[in-house]
Amino acid sequence: MTANPYPLLIKQILAAPLAQKSPHEIVHADIRRYGYPEFAARIARLGGLLGELGLGQGSTIAVMDWDSHRYLECFFAAPMIGATLHTVNIRLSAEQVLYTINHAGDDAILCHVDFLPLLADIRDRITRPFRLIVMQDNPVQAPADLQSDGEYEALMAEATPVAGFPDFDENTRATLFYTTGTTGAPKGVFYTHRQLVLHTLGVAAGLGPIPGSGFNRDDVYMPITPLFHVHGWGIPYVATMLGAKQVYPGRYEAARLLSLISEHRVTFSHCVPTILSMILNAPGAEDADLSGWRVIIGGSALSDALARSARMRGVAINAAYGMSETCPFLTVADMMTTRTEPQATPNCTAAGKPMPMVDVRIVDETMSDVPADGVSTGEIVVRAPWLTSGYLNDPVGSGDLWRGGWLHTGDVGLFDASGALRITDRLKDVIKTGGEWVSSLALENLASEVAGVSEAAAIGCPDPRWGERPLLIVASRRAADDVKSDIRARIAAAVTAGQLSKWATPDRIEIVSSLPKTSVGKLDKKALRAQYVIDKVQA
Amino acid sequence: MTANPYPLLIKQILAAPLAQKSPHEIVHADIRRYGYPEFAARIARLGGLLGELGLGQGSTIAVMDWDSHRYLECFFAAPMIGATLHTVNIRLSAEQVLYTINHAGDDAILCHVDFLPLLADIRDRITRPFRLIVMQDNPVQAPADLQSDGEYEALMAEATPVAGFPDFDENTRATLFYTTGTTGAPKGVFYTHRQLVLHTLGVAAGLGPIPGSGFNRDDVYMPITPLFHVHGWGIPYVATMLGAKQVYPGRYEAARLLSLISEHRVTFSHCVPTILSMILNAPGAEDADLSGWRVIIGGSALSDALARSARMRGVAINAAYGMSETCPFLTVADMMTTRTEPQATPNCTAAGKPMPMVDVRIVDETMSDVPADGVSTGEIVVRAPWLTSGYLNDPVGSGDLWRGGWLHTGDVGLFDASGALRITDRLKDVIKTGGEWVSSLALENLASEVAGVSEAAAIGCPDPRWGERPLLIVASRRAADDVKSDIRARIAAAVTAGQLSKWATPDRIEIVSSLPKTSVGKLDKKALRAQYVIDKVQA
Repeated sequence: MTANPYPLLIKQILAAPLAQKSPHEIVHADIRRYGYPEFAARIARLGGLLGELGLGQGSTIAVMDWDSHRYLECFFAAPMIGATLHTVNIRLSAEQVLYTINHAGDDAILCHVDFLPLLADIRDRITRPFRLIVMQDNPVQAPADLQSDGEYEALMAEATPVAGFPDFDENTRATLFYTTGTTGAPKGVFYTHRQLVLHTLGVAAGLGPIPGSGFNRDDVYMPITPLFHVHGWGIPYVATMLGAKQVYPGRYEAARLLSLISEHRVTFSHCVPTILSMILNAPGAEDADLSGWRVIIGGSALSDALARSARMRGVAINAAYGMSETCPFLTVADMMTTRTEPQATPNCTAAGKPMPMVDVRIVDETMSDVPADGVSTGEIVVRAPWLTSGYLNDPVGSGDLWRGGWLHTGDVGLFDASGALRITDRLKDVIKTGGEWVSSLALENLASEVAGVSEAAAIGCPDPRWGERPLLIVASRRAADDVKSDIRARIAAAVTAGQLSKWATPDRIEIVSSLPKTSVGKLDKKALRAQYVIDKVQA
Repeated sequence: MTANPYPLLIKQILAAPLAQKSPHEIVHADIRRYGYPEFAARIARLGGLLGELGLGQGSTIAVMDWDSHRYLECFFAAPMIGATLHTVNIRLSAEQVLYTINHAGDDAILCHVDFLPLLADIRDRITRPFRLIVMQDNPVQAPADLQSDGEYEALMAEATPVAGFPDFDENTRATLFYTTGTTGAPKGVFYTHRQLVLHTLGVAAGLGPIPGSGFNRDDVYMPITPLFHVHGWGIPYVATMLGAKQVYPGRYEAARLLSLISEHRVTFSHCVPTILSMILNAPGAEDADLSGWRVIIGGSALSDALARSARMRGVAINAAYGMSETCPFLTVADMMTTRTEPQATPNCTAAGKPMPMVDVRIVDETMSDVPADGVSTGEIVVRAPWLTSGYLNDPVGSGDLWRGGWLHTGDVGLFDASGALRITDRLKDVIKTGGEWVSSLALENLASEVAGVSEAAAIGCPDPRWGERPLLIVASRRAADDVKSDIRARIAAAVTAGQLSKWATPDRIEIVSSLPKTSVGKLDKKALRAQYVIDKVQA
C-alpha cells in the first residue's frame, strides 16, 4: 500500500468547517438558514440528485440564480461529482446568454423562476438537450413549467444523498464562466479543482494574518459581488473553509442589503465601487450603523472620494486587484491603512501588495521589466498557481493571454515606494496624445473630487493633429456649467502642482445624469466610445 | 505559448515577504540581524556558493547547527537549487549521527564548530566523499580545520549570487530528517516542495484566521523547537511567508531564551512541554514579563498542571498535534479557549481540531470508524496534502505507515463533543490489563496534579495473570512516601468519581529525581521500560 496522493479537491474545502464543528450558519436572506452539517447534508443530496439526472464527470451544469443558499450548494456539489459548474452571467443580454450556454455545452440548467422568461425566449435555439431544474424562493411562486425536470427543493427532498464524493485528478475542470471583453464574443474562463483550492488557501493565508483586521472565522460574511462573477471572487470558498457565518442577499437591492448588514451584523464584504456607492447613497443609509463593516473593493479603481465617504461612515475599506482570468485575487491592500497614507503617486489607485504565491511584474512591450523607480509604468503581467490556463476552445486568445509565459492583465501600473501596486490605467484606456500617455484614471480621479460629481469617465477621441485628445464625461446633478468650471479648476491646479501633464487637460467635458455600466457594474467605456466618439465625428 | 504551470516551490514562500516589502527583521540572538531583502540576497549568495561546490539537483546537503540565521538560509537555498536539505539531529549519539549521514548519502555537511569534535570522531567512517563548510558565531572561534572547504561567512562573502533559482517538478524532494522510533535504526522522513508549500499555506490559513489570537504578520516569532526537528515544525516557512519578525535563539539555554523573549517582545513560539516547563521554572522567570507570549505546545501531551501554570504567568497556551511524519501540523486548539473548557473526557489532552485540508479518522484494527460517541477510542489515521509518502529506502516501513491508504499515527484517541481531538495514548504505550485498555496518559495526568510532581510516566509491566500491570514513575523532590500517598489518594478519588477504571490503579509507584528524555525532549519510555521492566523481572 502506498501513500495517499491527496489531490487538491473542492470537497476538502467543505470538510474543514465540519471537522472544526463550526457553530455558524449559512443564511439566504429571509428565505433559508442552516448550519454547516445541514449544508453538507444538502450538498450530498444535491450530488445524488444531479447523478440521478444523469450528470457526472464531464457534464456541464449551468446555474442562473440570484445569490442564494442554492447557488453556494452548486459551488460545491457540481464540481464534487466531477462536473463543471457554469455560472451564467444573468445580466447579459438574452443573445449573449444563449451564446454562452451553447458555447459551454450545458447539460443541465438550474434556473430561478425570474430568469425563466429569458430562457423561454432562447430555449429553442439551445443546441444541446439539457435538464432543467427550476429554482424559487417561495412555494407559491412556482410556475407550471411542464418542460422542466422539477423544482429544486422538491427534487432535493426526494433525492438519495451520495454516500461520499469521489477522488479524481486535481486538474479536472471545476468551474466555467464568461467574460465580456472590449471586442468579440464572450470568452469562457475556467478553473480546475487545484486552482480553486490553492486560491482558497492563498486568500485565507493572505487575508487571515492581516493584523487587527484579517478575515477570520468569527466574521460575518456577505458577498456583494454576484456569485456568477468569478465565483463571487472566490471568497465563498474561503468563508466556507473558515466555517464563518455567511449571508447571501438574493437579488441586490440597496435597502435589502442595508437591512441584512444591520440584521446580521455583517463584518466582511466585497464589491465593485458602484455597488458601495449605491449602498452608501441609498435611502436610510445615513441611519444605518456600518461601523463594524469591512469591505474589499475591486473590479474598478477605488476613487479617493468614495474611499473617504466610506471611511466617514466608519466602513473599513481596502482595495484589491484581480480579474476574471486570475480567480481573481492578485493583490490586496491592508484594511484602513493604504487610503490614509500620503499618496506617492497622485491620482492613482493603490491596489495593495501581492498575495502569497503571486508573482507580479511590470513590463514593456519586449517583456523587459520597466525601471523600479516608482514612476515608470508598464503592463502588469502575473503568475500564480490559480490563474486560468486560457479561454475555452480559444487557442488564439489563450496564447495571447499567456504570451511570453506570463498572464497579461492588460492593465498599466507601477509599484510605488511602499511596494503597493498602483494601477494607472487599462492598456486600452490609455489616451495617447502628442506621443504622451495620459492616464484616464488620473483624470477621473480628479473629476470625482469635485463636489456633486458621482462618477467620471475619460476616453480618447481621435484627433488629426494629436492622435487622440481626452474627453471627460461626468455624472452630476449640479448645474452643468458650475460643475465643468470646478472640474477645469481642479485639473488646472493639478497641472500647476506638477501632478498632471498639461497635455492631459481635456478639450471637452460632458455632464450627464449617469454613466453606462457593464453587466458586472464597471464603467462601460465601450458604450461611451460608441456614443461620444461618433458624436464628435458627426459634430 | 501556453500557460505557466506554476509548480509549488519553496522559492515562492520567500518571494512573498519581498513582494510585500516586509519591514521586519530576522535576528539570530546577538550574532546577526538583517531585513528580508538582505535575507533574500544571502540566499542567492548561498545558492551560488553551493553551486560552486558542485552541489545541485540530486545532492543532499546536511546541516549541523544551533537555531541560527544560517539554518534558516539553508531551509531555503538548499531546496531552491534542487538539493535535499538533511537537517541532522545533533542530539543523537555520534553513532546515530553517523548512521543518518551515511543513510542519507550526504554530499556536503555544514557544521557548527561545536559539532566538529563529534564529526571528527566519525569522519573516517562516513562512506561518501563530502564537502565540509564550517559554521561559527564568532570569528575568533574559528578552528584551523584544514580538511574543510572553508568557513560559511567567508565563503559567502566570496560567492557569486545566483541570478535566479530554477523551476522544477513540485514533487522534487526538499528536506530529509531522521526520527528515532521505539525500535530499530533511525528512519528517514522526507518532504517535497509541494508538501512544504501546502503545509505553509495550510498552517497560515489555519493559524491566521483565529479570531483575536491568530498568527499574523506583526507577530514576533521565535521557535523553541529545534530547526532539525520537522523543520522547526514548519513554522519558519510560515513566518517567512508572512514576513514576520523572526528571532533564532541559537543554543537553547533557559536564561537566554527568557532574555530574548523580553528583549524582542516575542509574541509567538512553539515547543514541547518540557521546554516550556524549563523556561517557566528558570531562575529569573518570575520577574520576566511573559504576558504577550503565545505558545503552541506539541510533541507530547500538555498536562493540565503545566497549562495552568503557564496561564497564571499570562502565557497563552494552545495544544497542537502532529508528528514527524505529518510535516507536522494536523490539529490545533484555539488560543486560550480549549484549556478553560470543562473537559468532557477527564485526564485526556485536547489537541484541538483538524487544520484545513486535514482528514482525521479514528479507526479500529479493521480500519472501520469507531462509534463517534465521545467515549470509544481507536487509532488516529490521517490524510493531508503534506504527509510524508514514506521512509527513505524503507518500503516495508513505508507500507506499514500507510496501510489501508491512511497514515497511521500510532496514537489512540477520540473526538469529544466539541469536535476536539483528544489523544488518550500512544498505541504502544497503552497498558493492557485483564483485557482492558488503560491510558498511560490518564495516569500521568492525575499524578501531575499532585503537589511537587514535575513529571510522570506510566508504563505497562508484564504480568503473568493480567498480561500487563501499570507502573507509575514520578519525578519529585518531595519525600517519596508523601508523594506516593498523595498520588494514591488522587487516583483513588478518580476511580471513585468514575473517571478511571479501578484496574488502572498502579501496583507500584517509583519516585525519581528526573525522567529520561529523547533527543527531541519527549519522555523516553523506551529507556524507562528498559530500566524498570528488567528491574521487575530481576526482582
